[in-house]
Parts: sequence; structure tokens; C-alpha cells
Amino acid sequence: MHLQKHINQLAPKWTSIRRDLHRHPEAGWTEYRTSAIIADYLQQLGCYEVHVGPTVCKSSARMGVPSLEELALCEQRAITEGANPRWIEKMVGGYTGVVGVLKTNRPGPTIAMRFDIDCIELTESNSSDHRAFQENFASTHPGLMHGCGHDGHTTIGLGVAEILAHYQTELSGEVRLLFQPAEEGCRGAKAVVEAGWLDQVDQLFCAHLFPNDNFQVAGAIHGFLATTKIDATFHGKASHAGATPELGKNALLAAATATVQLNTIPRHSGGASRINVGTLIAESGRNVIADEATMKLETRGETTEINHYMREQAVNILHASAQMYDVTCNWRLAGEGDHGTSSRDLIPLIGEKVDQIKQKVTFIPEMTIRAGSEDAIYMLNKVQEQGGQAVYMGISGPPPAPTAPHQKNYDFHEDLIAIGVELFSRIALSTE
Amino acid sequence: MHLQKHINQLAPKWTSIRRDLHRHPEAGWTEYRTSAIIADYLQQLGCYEVHVGPTVCKSSARMGVPSLEELALCEQRAITEGANPRWIEKMVGGYTGVVGVLKTNRPGPTIAMRFDIDCIELTESNSSDHRAFQENFASTHPGLMHGCGHDGHTTIGLGVAEILAHYQTELSGEVRLLFQPAEEGCRGAKAVVEAGWLDQVDQLFCAHLFPNDNFQVAGAIHGFLATTKIDATFHGKASHAGATPELGKNALLAAATATVQLNTIPRHSGGASRINVGTLIAESGRNVIADEATMKLETRGETTEINHYMREQAVNILHASAQMYDVTCNWRLAGEGDHGTSSRDLIPLIGEKVDQIKQKVTFIPEMTIRAGSEDAIYMLNKVQEQGGQAVYMGISGPPPAPTAPHQKNYDFHEDLIAIGVELFSRIALSTE
Amino acid sequence: MHLQKHINQLAPKWTSIRRDLHRHPEAGWTEYRTSAIIADYLQQLGCYEVHVGPTVCKSSARMGVPSLEELALCEQRAITEGANPRWIEKMVGGYTGVVGVLKTNRPGPTIAMRFDIDCIELTESNSSDHRAFQENFASTHPGLMHGCGHDGHTTIGLGVAEILAHYQTELSGEVRLLFQPAEEGCRGAKAVVEAGWLDQVDQLFCAHLFPNDNFQVAGAIHGFLATTKIDATFHGKASHAGATPELGKNALLAAATATVQLNTIPRHSGGASRINVGTLIAESGRNVIADEATMKLETRGETTEINHYMREQAVNILHASAQMYDVTCNWRLAGEGDHGTSSRDLIPLIGEKVDQIKQKVTFIPEMTIRAGSEDAIYMLNKVQEQGGQAVYMGISGPPPAPTAPHQKNYDFHEDLIAIGVELFSRIALSTE
Amino acid sequence: MHLQKHINQLAPKWTSIRRDLHRHPEAGWTEYRTSAIIADYLQQLGCYEVHVGPTVCKSSARMGVPSLEELALCEQRAITEGANPRWIEKMVGGYTGVVGVLKTNRPGPTIAMRFDIDCIELTESNSSDHRAFQENFASTHPGLMHGCGHDGHTTIGLGVAEILAHYQTELSGEVRLLFQPAEEGCRGAKAVVEAGWLDQVDQLFCAHLFPNDNFQVAGAIHGFLATTKIDATFHGKASHAGATPELGKNALLAAATATVQLNTIPRHSGGASRINVGTLIAESGRNVIADEATMKLETRGETTEINHYMREQAVNILHASAQMYDVTCNWRLAGEGDHGTSSRDLIPLIGEKVDQIKQKVTFIPEMTIRAGSEDAIYMLNKVQEQGGQAVYMGISGPPPAPTAPHQKNYDFHEDLIAIGVELFSRIALSTE
Repeated sequence: MHLQKHINQLAPKWTSIRRDLHRHPEAGWTEYRTSAIIADYLQQLGCYEVHVGPTVCKSSARMGVPSLEELALCEQRAITEGANPRWIEKMVGGYTGVVGVLKTNRPGPTIAMRFDIDCIELTESNSSDHRAFQENFASTHPGLMHGCGHDGHTTIGLGVAEILAHYQTELSGEVRLLFQPAEEGCRGAKAVVEAGWLDQVDQLFCAHLFPNDNFQVAGAIHGFLATTKIDATFHGKASHAGATPELGKNALLAAATATVQLNTIPRHSGGASRINVGTLIAESGRNVIADEATMKLETRGETTEINHYMREQAVNILHASAQMYDVTCNWRLAGEGDHGTSSRDLIPLIGEKVDQIKQKVTFIPEMTIRAGSEDAIYMLNKVQEQGGQAVYMGISGPPPAPTAPHQKNYDFHEDLIAIGVELFSRIALSTE
Repeated sequence: MHLQKHINQLAPKWTSIRRDLHRHPEAGWTEYRTSAIIADYLQQLGCYEVHVGPTVCKSSARMGVPSLEELALCEQRAITEGANPRWIEKMVGGYTGVVGVLKTNRPGPTIAMRFDIDCIELTESNSSDHRAFQENFASTHPGLMHGCGHDGHTTIGLGVAEILAHYQTELSGEVRLLFQPAEEGCRGAKAVVEAGWLDQVDQLFCAHLFPNDNFQVAGAIHGFLATTKIDATFHGKASHAGATPELGKNALLAAATATVQLNTIPRHSGGASRINVGTLIAESGRNVIADEATMKLETRGETTEINHYMREQAVNILHASAQMYDVTCNWRLAGEGDHGTSSRDLIPLIGEKVDQIKQKVTFIPEMTIRAGSEDAIYMLNKVQEQGGQAVYMGISGPPPAPTAPHQKNYDFHEDLIAIGVELFSRIALSTE
Repeated sequence: MHLQKHINQLAPKWTSIRRDLHRHPEAGWTEYRTSAIIADYLQQLGCYEVHVGPTVCKSSARMGVPSLEELALCEQRAITEGANPRWIEKMVGGYTGVVGVLKTNRPGPTIAMRFDIDCIELTESNSSDHRAFQENFASTHPGLMHGCGHDGHTTIGLGVAEILAHYQTELSGEVRLLFQPAEEGCRGAKAVVEAGWLDQVDQLFCAHLFPNDNFQVAGAIHGFLATTKIDATFHGKASHAGATPELGKNALLAAATATVQLNTIPRHSGGASRINVGTLIAESGRNVIADEATMKLETRGETTEINHYMREQAVNILHASAQMYDVTCNWRLAGEGDHGTSSRDLIPLIGEKVDQIKQKVTFIPEMTIRAGSEDAIYMLNKVQEQGGQAVYMGISGPPPAPTAPHQKNYDFHEDLIAIGVELFSRIALSTE
Repeated sequence: MHLQKHINQLAPKWTSIRRDLHRHPEAGWTEYRTSAIIADYLQQLGCYEVHVGPTVCKSSARMGVPSLEELALCEQRAITEGANPRWIEKMVGGYTGVVGVLKTNRPGPTIAMRFDIDCIELTESNSSDHRAFQENFASTHPGLMHGCGHDGHTTIGLGVAEILAHYQTELSGEVRLLFQPAEEGCRGAKAVVEAGWLDQVDQLFCAHLFPNDNFQVAGAIHGFLATTKIDATFHGKASHAGATPELGKNALLAAATATVQLNTIPRHSGGASRINVGTLIAESGRNVIADEATMKLETRGETTEINHYMREQAVNILHASAQMYDVTCNWRLAGEGDHGTSSRDLIPLIGEKVDQIKQKVTFIPEMTIRAGSEDAIYMLNKVQEQGGQAVYMGISGPPPAPTAPHQKNYDFHEDLIAIGVELFSRIALSTE
């Protein structure tokens, strides 16, 4: 078929873009280089309004933004690594993300497609059986890795942009391509929503790549957990651990206590709950009673209520742990995501499009995961509240080696890029 | 008196050396710039054999040496900050420290004087009431600070070298000035001992600066605790904390558990004991079950036996905590110091010399601290085992503002430098 | 209607039996008095084979049987409180429980009905607003209470026996009334199964009373969790806590550590899990390092596999906690229950019978609880494996005061007895 | 010698009294039978004022008195076991202890001798190599044992009473024999002091039996730790652990957390400190979130200040642990003892008397233990504050089998009774 042939011709270019992104992963709110590449790409296609900078995300709704010092280092790095300084300039202060709007000026629905672009904080495997390492596209940023496939998501978004540009005469209404920053930690979607990009949207399509035994598209994924992300800092008082241990206020001991006790929050009979402390840092030196410890944690719940139960318990335990050692604990919300679900009405349409993909791709209408959280849920909820329809799809296929998201050796089958581009494009081209 | 006048003339130079050292603190085994300055100083005095590089410390007896990558960065920094590259070259690989030997070729005792030169890992206060900050000699190395006064010790050593050079005709026997690296963490003294620098030493003099209400010299300090320094790393398995928490092996939870439980080691009825976890780092990211956590801890004991009891319990708890979460724990000795004590025979001599210091300095023969540990004890034990005498003195006076060693705002009265130089010099000049 | 009128006449007697049972609660394997009352009752009805003693439960399959000393005290208490010594004699050694078999000698199905008879270990409320206390039928056994309504279950079983005896000419096949001991802790059902009482059973009916706003029967309850009950004992070494704390091996500290850490077992993404330490006893005296601590705990899982995961983790934590303090930990299985579910085929029949109960009783076909566990599941699984059908029903109504099972002030609406008798009787009378 | 011969004749009787006391141990404030035996014994000697009941101990100063129910059971037990009901009647409500006063009506000093009479809470060994078990004088009270030798102390006191009665014409001044209840847990001495029995006392003598390789008397024991005894109760909310864990408030988890965390109180550089939780009881049942947990703990310190530091930290941790799980914690002081020390002036006198004991008994003037606490310190402090002299002696010898106080198999060489009687008697007879 014509569309598919077109896609197949472009696929090698997209693979090489994906691998370039993979080599330069950027964490939430620091996707400067990534955003600059997206902005360049959209601009060159000629038919898109390209939105970059503070209009993409509402400033006050951004959660978990790094310090200005850290941001400045990342801005510098992006330029060093070839990003167009013209774009970077507009993004200074963590205003990453890009929105491309294609207005057909023909009456029709407004559809939004969302692609998340940030990486996770993990050092990529340098094992010889890890393809990215073998084929030289592993992360060059220590401690950062596209371990959740957002490099794939971003590339799919660019591919969709290119295909829709080519077939724009067949489109009606308006298409908004949302390249969202800071999905990890559920920090960015709310800010995109509050900036207004989901207003008047009739249909929203999101997707995630997954490893699977076969190529498969799931029409609607359910089961994303509500979540809260918390950053906590314990402040105590240093003292020489040999000379006067009784004069110290041990912030590390309070934080370690909190870490253990947080994991004891009772399970909730109303459904799944989660707690995790993923980061704990105290480094006052071996022979000093630690006067500071910082901690990153998250709670989740099968419903927003269960997550609130977890959050309340967690905050109480943070404070009680601090009190136990007469230290203080300050915490702030670093991210939060609600529970939500896909609109079932869109499933038949998606199934129809999957059937048109002349490949070994099978279709399952629905899939429930007891999985992570997704801040796209903010977008789904927003569109559904307006009376629109919104769906979160799964695009899966066999990885080059056994792995799972958020593992050091994560990777995905690169044919998923073409499949994803075709799926989103066909959906956009069929809506009216 | 002649000697004192001489010292008073030189004092301003020494203060400025001390402040330069204070601005460029270097942690254990990375005292490249400091060592280069010492070596230059001794060499210019003309009469010292200057030993630099692998002969100063026995390589295999060095504990807690940083990685080669880290060392290389520090070597580079030293050169950038003006160190003589000729010395740095000899020290590559963490072979810091300097020994200056003055041979009189006249029969007489071999006396050794030890000055430790490293800093601690602490970020210095930038409070406006901190003198080093006000007068612009605060540390320029983030995370590093001369918070234990070794900049003073080093300067006193240089002053003693200069005075003895001037009065060398009045000396007999041999004087060894030991500028020892890596005292913090009890990592360096053992390596100096094993390199042979205490062999044939008849008398050893060490000292530490302390804050005190008045100027005072203590003839012999007792009560240093035996100590063991341990670095531990927990390795688990990462997993998405929302999707599949049960597939993770939580290294951070194991480390936090160990941190709490280590503090529960029963007190010992035989005497004082200590335990501290001062550093804990896990940073797999908020939503990932942490697959790695590193920890720095130390035990102490009023006797070597009590410290061994603490060490054994600590290692057992590390392993049990790892087993609890099915992770592994690797640990290594990062430092160790025995219990020991000063020779009382030298106290009268020291008292006599203090009396000659025509200043407001009082003398107390002995002082028992329940304090930190000191790896000079390795040297004291070595000399005493050989039939020699060894002493650890205290030199104290009123600090510019209330503080204590290992605090962010630590500082000492700079007159202590001249007092220290005079004390050590008079001792050297009187022995025969 | 005739049957109902009959039941209503008998109801006051049953209420008084229930209250007598409530005043004399007996824990698992010590239901001597209860069993004697049941045996007397069945025997007086004339038409039942009455099985008492070791044929009721397979000896080796009984879990969590108390010590012989404890059993002997309970046997004595039962006789003191009026139990027929002839029955007690047969039950010596914890062989409680009764099976009543009514053989019609007419061809027909074998149906079994199961009623559990034991109490829980809880001291009943003596608050003035607790009906059992007000109306003088609260437990007279400190630490024991019918806090889960098995006094009601037992009474319903007796009522069913009486009604079926009266209408026996209308029955065909065989009816087995299983008065099962030791349901709490999932200790008894397996032994009844292994004694053969479910062999050849075509249909099995079980039920539980619940508090509810309205009178309601649920046709089939789903969602019982698989469970494992564990008794653990830590053995250490006593020492005077002031004189020589370092010589002790602290069994209580190990047990407390285990209690905290057990609660940190990661949640399972496959479904609900539970952990609870409900009992912990160490009483070596305030100034003695505790040399023994005993603990009762349980795990649960939405599937048998999840429960096995929990059990494995729990046992590992018990051992690691013991290792941490160099004590030993012995544990034994005190009960275990699998996951299972009700047969949906029986729901219409039950619905039909509920409709015949001319009262305010409504019917809901199915109900899923995320609740406790039930060892009746062993019986359901057994009957279903044989090709039969088995169901666990819920009978609910408004309690005299707001409460919940296993609370000190638990009670149920006593009309539930008549409703339960009518439900079970109609079912028995209709099967053919 | 005359006195010694006399003692040797009486020794077999005393041994049999000691063994009778050993078989009937009574815990603090329940020494009804023991007190009745003492009162009978003193009364039969004819020359003593015998004080029994509320005048012995000031009611409000008694710490850790059991409940009236428990006391009543012990009163009953004492009578059942042969105690004279006339005495018991006077002691109802925990007013145990006896004071015997011998007034010579000759001018002279007032001397007091103190003997503690209570047992510890420990079940005695029934091992075949335990002499008390072999020779049939082991405790007949489960959970109670004379494991600290107070049966010996009591018997020595009776022996001294008998000898002084016989030699009363050789005495001058006044002798007060204080048979003090509730030493264990430091609960009774303060009440004896506040009742006035140490007022006007010029010299006070106390002693403790110890195991030792040889027979030896220590003139003055130093090093008793200050201590605080605390009883704490956590109250939460029960809930079914399977059905609704999130509705529970877990008192056991709070108590277990407190137990672990209490052991993490930082060591104090000022001297020895101790913490112990010896008893923890929660028994809500395996499948119930525990709504109550009780705990007995103690702190100690080398000085009263250090003990106060420990107490403050402990109370803070109790409260923070409760807060952590939203439960409440109530605590009360169950005992408290200060730091104190023996008067050195009395040592020569004691040494002289020991030399007169024509046996293999050696003398050491002083002995420092880092040991337990002793509420006799209240008495020593009181007498010394009044300008008097007070001493705590040690009487030691080889036990029948290796053991230590507070062990299940504790026992002492019964010759220590005669030695003790002779020592105290000679002291009393020599003072003037």
C-alpha cells in the first residue's frame, strides 16, 4: 500500500534519529537537545505551527523542576552536543517540550497525539550482549538512559508529523502533536493540560512501546495507578561520631528509619497500592553524625483514594521518623498523577486501523496492567471531562534480547517505530 | 629570647601559608598540591633529604585509596592550582605525603615528628560570621574543608623545618619530619610505619590543635579509641516499583535496614564503643527498586578488643540485612586504628619546654579524651614496641568563634602555629 | 407457610442455644462443650448417625493443635460447664467436631452442609452498649469470644438438623451435616476433608453471617485469599542488661526486627497480598536480655501463588532477623488455606430458595470480597475436583450496633438464625 | 572462736531456711510469705521491735506495685503455703518488708543493715545438673525464681538478728535490720528511705552475694549505674488483617518499631549507658491487627545525668513510634535509681573484720563493677547526705556449678550464709 511503502522508505532515517536520541538521553525538564531536534524537524516540514518555550507547559504546574544550576548545565550540554541555540534560548529555565499544530482550515475534529520525550535516571548497561552498546548507540550521558523507550515515542511523533505533512490534504480539522517533557515522575502532563493544549480536543491518542513475544497493538490500556512523588529532606546536627555522638541529631538514621517504616504501610483492601524509596543520599562523611539526608519516594494506588491513603501515611511516617531523632523533615510534591482509564468507544476504530497494517501485527482490544503510572492520565481525564474521547494504546513486539522497561539493558524492536507511525497516521487520516 | 623572636618574625609568612592551604584542602591520598608545597619548602631549606612518592607510604598498607579516575582528577587540579608538576609526577597514583630527614652526622638520638596534612569531607560554612569566609580564605573545593586543623599541623611542620634548619648546628642525631597523608579515616599512618620511617626512632612527637578557653599545652593525651572503617556496597536487582515490585531486590531497603540495625549493637560493659553510618547513597531513581546502595561506616572501641567486637557485629548485621532482601553485600576495610597511649616519661621534658615559651601558655601534664581515633597510634605503638618513647600532645587556645573540630565553621587561633613551632623546635633542640 | 411457621416456633429456643454457646466460647480443637451439645442435640433427634471423636478429623491433617496440657484443661472446663462426659471422653486429645449423617435410603444426591463451631481469641467488650454484655450472654472465658459468629453458624446447623429430621420423608439421598472445628486459623477443614467426609459429595453448601444494612443472601462469595499461618520462636541467650549486655543474644530484638521487616515485603503486582504479626510475646524480665520470643503471623494472597511468594519472603525474613542477632528461629506451619471459588451453577437454585423466604430478605447472586480466608475452600476444592458443585454463601443483616467481625463488640441480628435455617433447609429439601 | 562456733552450730538451720525461701520465691511487693517468716523469726528472738505493714515503706513512694488483683492472689498463695495470717493481714495491698529494731538503751551509734528479700521473674532451670533441682529446693512458683540470691540475703539477715540477740549485751546504740522488698527493678529502697528508716542512721551496711573462684569479701563496691524503669502500653485499633488491614492501627508494629529504635539511642561520650526492652507482649491473635502491646524497658547511665539523657531519648522514641502508626503510647515510671558510691572510710573496719573470720576468706578493699543498678544507692545517698557513712560490700565464693546472677541455673555456695552472718555481726558488735 502507498502509505506503508512511504513509511518503509523513511524508516531507516527514523531509526538513525532514534539512535541519536538514545545516545543523548535527557531527563525531565532538561530535554533541550531533544526539543531542539523536534522543533527543527517540525519547522522543516513547513506546515506546522511550532510552539517552544513557556507556552508549552504552564510554569507553575510543572512539578519536580531541577535547580537553575542543573538546568544551566544541561542547556550548555545541549548546545555542546549540537542543539540549535536559537531554540535553547527560548527554553532556558526548564521550558522544554514542543507542540506542533497542523491546522487544515477544513472543518473537522481536533485531535491530539501525545509523545513523551524524557529519559530515566539509570546508567545504561555496557554489557557486550546489549545491542545499544554493541552497535554504538548506548547513552553517552552517565546516569541517564532511554530505558523506557521514549526515544521511540519521540521518533514515532516525528514520523507521524512527516507523514501527516505529506498527506495533509487528506486531513480535516486540526491535529496537535504534543511532545511532552517530564513524563517520568508524572511531572509534565499536568503542565501541558494547564497550558490549554487539551482544550477543545475531541480525541486524544497516546501510546507506549512494550516488549512482547509478538507484534501486537492493544486498543486500550487500563490499570494505570494513581501516584504521588515526594522529595524529602531531613536536617539534623553534625557531631563527631567518636567524640560526642550524643550531641548529634542523626538525619541519616531518621531517613533510614523512614525508608524501612514507609515500606510497612498496611496494604489496602480496596485495591493495589505501592510505596518506593528509590533514592536516598546522605554524605556527611564516615565519622560525622549526618546532618542532612535527602530522599525521593513515591506512592501509588489503584484508585486516587487509595493513593491518597498511601500519601497520608507516608507523610506521617516521614514526620514521625524525624521526630524520633529530633531532626526536621521538609517535603515537597515532586509529581502527582490521578487514576483514569481509556475510552472504550475508540477501540473499534483502532482495531480497524491495526487490521490495515499489512504486517504480522495482531490486535487485542483491551489490556489491563497492574503497572506503573502515567501522567498522560491527566490528559485523558481532561479530554473525557470535556466530552471527548481519549485512549492509551500499547504497541509491542519482540525485543532484541530479553528485557523489561527501566532495566539497564532495555531496548525495543525498531520495527515498532514504523508500526507506530503507521498506526497514528492512519488514525489521524481517518478521523473526520 | 632569640628563638622566639625569630619565630615571631616568620609567623606572618606561616599564617599566609596556612591560609593558602586552607583555601585548597585535599582529602586523604589526594594531597598533591599540599605535598608539592611541602617538598618545595623543605628543598629550599637546603639541608633536608626530601622523600616524595612511593617510598613515603608502603603501597599495600595504604587503606581507602580512591579510584584512579578520582586520583587523576585531583592530580590535574593540583597542577591547575599551581603545584610543581615535577613533584606531582612522582606522586601519581595516590603516593602523597612527604618525609624530610635532617641528618646531623653527630651521634645522637633519632627523633621523629609527625604532621598530618589531609582535610575532611565537609563543605565549609559560608556564614558571614565565619572568619575564613569573611577574610577570604575559605575552601575553594566544594565538599572539602580543613575542618580538623591539619592545615595548621602542616604549617607547624614547615615552621619547625625552617627553625631546625637555622639552628642545625645545635642539633645532634637525626630528625625525621613526617608529613603524613590520609589521617582522616585512619588510613595513612600504618603505611608510613610499614615503609620503615619509624624504624630506629627513639622518640616520637605528635600533636593536635584544639579549641580551648585559654592557651594550653597538654603533655600527653590518652583515650584515643580503636577504630575500624568499612565501605559496604549492596547489590540487588532493579525493577519498576509500580509494575512489578515483587521482581526487584531492594538494595536500598537492605542498606537502610542495616543502618538502623547497626545502631542497635549492644553496648559493651568493658568500655566505650561507637558505631556510625555517615554516608549512604542509593540513587536508582524514584520509581525503580534500587539495585545498588553504598555505605560508609565506622566502629570504635575503648580497647582494640571492644572495637573488634563492634566490627564483628557490624559485619554480621551487614550480611543479615542483605540476606533479608536477597541482595548481596560486599565490604572492604577502608581504615583501621588500634588503641594505644602516650609514654608518660616524656611529660617532664615537654613541661619544661612549655615553661620556656614566654607567653600565656599553661601546661597540663595529661589529658584523657573520650574522643575520636588517631592513626598516629600506629606510630606510637611501633616506637614503644622498639623500646622508644612516643607521645601525643595537645596544643589549644581560644578559637575566633565558638566551634568544634569537624564542624562547618571550624577554625583555630593562628597564634597556635607559632606556639606549636616553638614547642616542637625546643623539644628537638634539647634532645641528645 | 408451614415450614416457616415451624421455624418461627423454634426460633426462641435457638436464640437461647446461641446465647449459651456465646457465653461459653471454645477455641479451635477445644470445642468440647460445643461438640457435646451438638452431639446430644443430633442424637435426640433420633434419625442421625452421630460421629464424634477421631473419625471426624484425620489426626495428622489437623494443624495448630494446642498442647496436651492445654487440651486437658479445656476438657476439664467443658465438664465443669455441664458437657456430657460420655462425649468428652471420645474427644480427648483435641478430637472435637461432630458429623451428623441422615441417610434416607432413597436414591438421591449426597449433599453436605458445613457449619464451623470455634471461637476467636479475643476478650469480649464489657462496654455497657454491647448487647451481649447488657443482656448477660457475653463470654465467660477471658481471652475467648465468639467474635466471628460461629455460635450463629452452629445454631443454624442444629436448626437445620431439627427441621430436616421433621421433614425427612421429603428428603432423598443423603445429607451430611459437618460441624467443623478449628476454622479460625484455617486449621480444621483439611482434616475433615482427609477424613473422607467430602468423598462422594455431589453438592456442598457453606455460609457465613455478616453485618449489612439490610437482610440479604449472597448466592456465591468469591475472593477468599489463600493463606499460611506460621508460629515462630526465637531462642537467644539471657544476660543481665546492665552488667554484660554484650554477652546476651537478644531474641526479642530479633523478633521485633522481624515484625517490622515482615511488613516490608514488597507488594505483588499479581494481586492482593497480606502479612500480619498478631502476637508477639517475650517476657524475660525488664533487666534481662530476652532469651526467648514467640510470634504468630500469617500471610495471604489473592492466589495460592501469591501466598506462596509471601510465605517464602516471610520465612526468609524470620531467618535473617535471627541471624542478625545471632539467635535461632524455629517455625512451624500452624495453618494453611488455598485459594478457591464458588460454583456458579448453584446460584439460581439458591436465588429461588431465597425468594421463598417470605421476609424482607433480598438476594444478590454473587459477591466478591477482598477479605479473609476460609478453610472451607479445601472442601469446595475437593467437591469441585470430584465433579460436584460447592458454594459459599453470605447471610447478612443489620447488627444490634455498628460493628464488624473480629471486633470486641461483634454481634449479629438474631433473626439471621431463622433465615439461615430456612435457607439451608429449603435447599436440602429441594435437591434430588 | 566462740562467735564462729555459735554460727557453725546454727548454719544447718539457716541453710534449711534458705532452701525453704528458695522454693517459695516472691516478686517485689508480694513477699508476703517471706515477710511473715521474717516477722515470726524476729518476734521469737524476743528483743526486737518488729515493724510490718504500711510503716515499713512509704505508700506513695513505692514504684511498680502490681494490681490489687495480683496482690490478692499472692496474699492467698502465701497463706496457702503456710504464712501466718496475722502478719499477712497487716500487709494487704503490697505492704511487704519488715524492719527489726534492737534498742540497747546504751548510748552509741545507730547502724542499719539492709537485706533485700524479693525474687526475680524467671522460670528456674529443671536441668538435672542444677543443684536446686537435684536436691529438691527449686522454685515451686512457675515464672519466679530466687535468681539473684536474695534468699541468701534474707537468711543472712535472720542469722544476724539471731546472733545479735544472743550477744545483745555487747551492743550499744541502736541496730536497725531492714528487710527491704522490691529491690529488683529498683522499686523499694526509695519507699524505705521515705518512711524514715534511714533517718539518724550513722552507718549503713549492705551487701550482695556473687559467684567467684574463691571466697572473698570486697569492702566497697563502686560503679552501680543510675537507672530508670518504664512500663509502656500502646493502644491502637483492631481490624481483620485479611479483610481490612488499612482500618487497623497496629499497636504491635509500633511497639516492635520502638523496641528496635530504642536500641539505636546514641552512646554517650560521658560514660556508660544502657537500654533494654526485656518484655513485650501483644496477643490480639494472629489474624487481627493488634490493638494493644505492653512493654517493659529500662535505661541506665554511669551518672544520673547520663541516665536522664537515656530516659529522655527513650520517652521520645516511644512517642514517635506511636505517632508513626497513629496509635497512642502511655508510659509510667516503674522504678528509678540514682548513681552513688560507697564511703571509703568504712573499708579499714570491714577489712579488720574479714581478717577475724578464720576461714579461707580473702579481702579486697574496693571493687568497681560496670554492672547493674542497686536501689540501695538511695539509702547510701541518704545516709551520706546526713553526714553518715554507708557501704555496699560484696561477699563471694565458688558456686556449685558455673553460673551467673539472673541465669536460670543461678545458685551460690551456702557457706556464704555463715560468712555473711559473721561479717555483719562482727561489724555490729564492734561499732561504738
